[in-house]
Amino acid sequence: MAEFLFRRLTLLGMGLIGSSIARAARAYGGIAEEIVANARPPKTLARVQELGIVDRVEADPARAVAGADCVILCAPVGAFAGLAAAIAPALSPGAILSDVGSTKQSVIRDVGPLVPSGVHFVPAHPLAGTEYSGPDSGFAELFQGRWCLLTPPPGTDAESVANIETLWRRMGSMVDVMEPAHHDRVLAMVSHLPHLLAFTVCGTADDLADETRQQVLQYAASGFRDFTRIAASDPEMWRDVFLNNREALLEMLARFTEDAQAMARAVRWGDTDYIVDKIERGRKIRRSLIELKQE
Amino acid sequence: MAEFLFRRLTLLGMGLIGSSIARAARAYGGIAEEIVANARPPKTLARVQELGIVDRVEADPARAVAGADCVILCAPVGAFAGLAAAIAPALSPGAILSDVGSTKQSVIRDVGPLVPSGVHFVPAHPLAGTEYSGPDSGFAELFQGRWCLLTPPPGTDAESVANIETLWRRMGSMVDVMEPAHHDRVLAMVSHLPHLLAFTVCGTADDLADETRQQVLQYAASGFRDFTRIAASDPEMWRDVFLNNREALLEMLARFTEDAQAMARAVRWGDTDYIVDKIERGRKIRRSLIELKQE
Repeated sequence: MAEFLFRRLTLLGMGLIGSSIARAARAYGGIAEEIVANARPPKTLARVQELGIVDRVEADPARAVAGADCVILCAPVGAFAGLAAAIAPALSPGAILSDVGSTKQSVIRDVGPLVPSGVHFVPAHPLAGTEYSGPDSGFAELFQGRWCLLTPPPGTDAESVANIETLWRRMGSMVDVMEPAHHDRVLAMVSHLPHLLAFTVCGTADDLADETRQQVLQYAASGFRDFTRIAASDPEMWRDVFLNNREALLEMLARFTEDAQAMARAVRWGDTDYIVDKIERGRKIRRSLIELKQE
Repeated sequence: MAEFLFRRLTLLGMGLIGSSIARAARAYGGIAEEIVANARPPKTLARVQELGIVDRVEADPARAVAGADCVILCAPVGAFAGLAAAIAPALSPGAILSDVGSTKQSVIRDVGPLVPSGVHFVPAHPLAGTEYSGPDSGFAELFQGRWCLLTPPPGTDAESVANIETLWRRMGSMVDVMEPAHHDRVLAMVSHLPHLLAFTVCGTADDLADETRQQVLQYAASGFRDFTRIAASDPEMWRDVFLNNREALLEMLARFTEDAQAMARAVRWGDTDYIVDKIERGRKIRRSLIELKQE
């Protein structure tokens, strides 16, 4: 009989990430003997049942976590405080509580104080996603070759951190440990700001006069198409990310705005050196990315 | 023997677009009996010769256009005025002069006055491209299913417009005719602004402190990766596009900046309705795009 990392793994939230963990835990052996799923919308839970990707669905989060030795919060981060309050009394002593939220300081602030003593809280963030959402959008290979960042607060039980690391490695991820505030700044730059810009430029296009708008869509060239792909992501998730990484996001947006204004000035006054330098830097970053095999 | 649209087609500039036209003209029959290519960098011309994708290479643009019944400017738009001056005396009476530039008012302003009487000037812009450049990056299928916009000035010879339309349709494009100023506004929104934002955000990331920068690259999530793909495009081409569509680009950037500031304010003050509305609009545009089969 196989050696399982966890006896019972409970997933709270069954969107793209939660349903991908469920599928990966089944597809790659040795992760969990039993998988229990909870989701707030009854429709989602019914669909998860129908898909047959977990052993048991449970409409009540406290019942879902009872007896689990690992619980992962997979809902939008804005729902974490309410979920943590609901499940805290039902968590088993010695259990690991983890999450997949895109903002880590807010999660530690919201969830940390509610974790019962004897339960080990290991915040995590898999850098993986697509523009699709919901339980049908998940797939077992989502985390393959992608980073998962762990941000355990000081004093977190080392064995629990190691177990969460093992979980993500078995699902194909590379794992790193990072300080929560640093995580939030890096992610504000590489993920949250780009999404804010993409949502915004789609809105700007939408505001053009009706006749033009039709043509904006009809002739959408490659630049705009890439932006709309980013902008197609889950609204509830991104609302929560923006509000829960406010300070870092606003700082990165302020830096970006200064740079965009400098570029506007260069375009207005025909400063070709400045423009070419900025374009070359974009290419350089692209090359570095390719060298780092993130493509 | 096949009926050819042109007896001799001359391409001035052999980057992604020029070399793709050469390949497409060969791959899809009935376009040109002979293809002549010119490019400014001797290295590019040597490589085109080596690739064998045209019938003849010619280092002098005036010699390249001699005897051609169709000439297409495929260089960055900033080089058009110089090229047009160089070839004007050598253009054959009755020949069609066209281009593939991303900005149309500037092309009509720069090239129009240099076109000898009896030569028919038909400005065109294929909405196709990749993040690669140079003669090796072209491929015959680049224009398949993509729009090509023609912006003929009033009074342009109708038969010449029809021939350029036929050329693009035979290479697989859909063709539309548009007023030049309108073209420049629509393209500023769907292509030039997104590229400016992508170049800028890469620069903003590059300015982060060294330690953070490494992690920006290492953990680049999907949002940032899409931006770097856009930002990897040809610097010389984009410099020229920005400078030659200055007014429309600055207007769209100003609109965008207002919208980004409004979004920043909503994030700062926790205006969830505003944020969700903007995100939903991005999704709506995405869905419209998919319905219009631009994906």
